[in-house]
Amino acid sequence: MTAFRWVPPFAQGLVRDLRVRWALEEAGLAYEERLIGPEEQRSAAYRRQQPFGQVPVLEQDGLTLFESGAIVLHVAEQSKALLPTEAQARLRARTWMFAALSTVEPPILALNALGMKQPVDDGVVPTRARVASRVDQRLDSLAAFLTGKEHLEGAFSAADLLMTTVLRALRDTDRVSSRVVLREYQAGCEARPAFQRALRAQMDTFARHAPVSP
Amino acid sequence: MTAFRWVPPFAQGLVRDLRVRWALEEAGLAYEERLIGPEEQRSAAYRRQQPFGQVPVLEQDGLTLFESGAIVLHVAEQSKALLPTEAQARLRARTWMFAALSTVEPPILALNALGMKQPVDDGVVPTRARVASRVDQRLDSLAAFLTGKEHLEGAFSAADLLMTTVLRALRDTDRVSSRVVLREYQAGCEARPAFQRALRAQMDTFARHAPVSP
Repeated sequence: MTAFRWVPPFAQGLVRDLRVRWALEEAGLAYEERLIGPEEQRSAAYRRQQPFGQVPVLEQDGLTLFESGAIVLHVAEQSKALLPTEAQARLRARTWMFAALSTVEPPILALNALGMKQPVDDGVVPTRARVASRVDQRLDSLAAFLTGKEHLEGAFSAADLLMTTVLRALRDTDRVSSRVVLREYQAGCEARPAFQRALRAQMDTFARHAPVSP
Repeated sequence: MTAFRWVPPFAQGLVRDLRVRWALEEAGLAYEERLIGPEEQRSAAYRRQQPFGQVPVLEQDGLTLFESGAIVLHVAEQSKALLPTEAQARLRARTWMFAALSTVEPPILALNALGMKQPVDDGVVPTRARVASRVDQRLDSLAAFLTGKEHLEGAFSAADLLMTTVLRALRDTDRVSSRVVLREYQAGCEARPAFQRALRAQMDTFARHAPVSP
C-alpha cells in the first residue's frame, strides 16, 4: 500500500491511507507500506498506478486498486469483520459506505476550502455560512439515524469505518463534539484496537520522516 | 424508485435519479417511479427510507437502498451490460466508480457552492480560483487517462455512467467542452440510447409537473 512519507500536522491522522490501514487491521491482513513523496506523486510511473497522483494505492496478488473507498470495500469483502454476511444487510452497509463518501464528506470538503475553523477571508463569510449549514444538516440527519444505535448497520462494518474517517476531518471544530450521538459514535469506533494500530502506523511514519527543524 | 416531481431548470437533467434510470435502462430492467415533493422529502416516513431526505431511493424485492452510487453498483452487479465479467477488471471498474464520486465530483460540488460559471460574489474570487484549479487538475488527470481510450475500463460500464453524470454538472462551463478527450468521451456515453431514454424520462416528469406560470 502506498502512503505519504510526511505531511504537515494539519493533515496528519487524516490522510486516506488511514482508512485502508484500518480495514486491513480489522481484517487481520498484514501489509507493507511503500512511502512516496511529492516527486513520485507527480511521476508518470505513479500516475500509471494512480491517475490522480493520490494515496493510497493497494497492490494485492497482481491487482492494483486505488480510491480508499474502493479498496476498503474490496478488503471488506474478504473479511467477516467488515461486512454483514446476510445479503440485504450487506447491501445496506454498502449504501452507508457511499453515503459517507458521497453525501457526508463533500460538503465537509467544501467547508474546508472556505476555512474549516473560520473563514479563509472575510469575503467568503456568507458563502461559508451556507456550506456550513449544509454540513450541519448532514450531521443532524446522521445523528437522527444513529440515535439509539451503536453502528450504521448491525455490528461495526466498513460503513462505520468510512463514516468515522469522514467525521475526523471536523476535529478542529465543535461540529461533532457538540452532537452527543455523533461524539459517542466516533469515540466508540476510534476506541477499536484496529483503529488505534492504524492511526499509530500512519503517525509513526510521519514522525520518522519529519523534516529537520532549521 | 423515488424522484422529484419538479426541480428548477438549473438542476433539470442533473438530479441523481438520472443515474439510476440510466443503469436500469442499460440493464434492461423495467421500473416504476414514485414522485415526491419537498413535504414528503422532509417527512419522518421518507427519512426512514432515506435518512438525508434525498432522491433516489430504490425498492426492489423487499430491499430498500439509497445513494445513487450504491444503487448503480447494485444494479450493475445484476447485468453484464454494466460491469466486466472478469474479476480484476470488475474491481478496476468499481475503483473508477469511486473515483467519479470521491475524487472528481467533490471539487465540482465545492466549485458549485462558489459559483459554477462566475463567482457568487466578489469576495470569493481567490478561493474560487483555488477550487477551480483543483477541478481542472482532476479533469486534466482524467483526460490524460482517457487519451486513446473510449471507456475507463474495457467496454462501457457503470464507471462511465457515473463519470458522465459527474461531468454533466459542468455543462454551463467550458471545462469539459474545452478538453477534446473529455468532450468526446462524454458525448459518446450520452449518445447511448439507454442514456437518452433515462434523460427523457426525467425531463418528461419535470415537464408534466411544471408550475403554472402566474
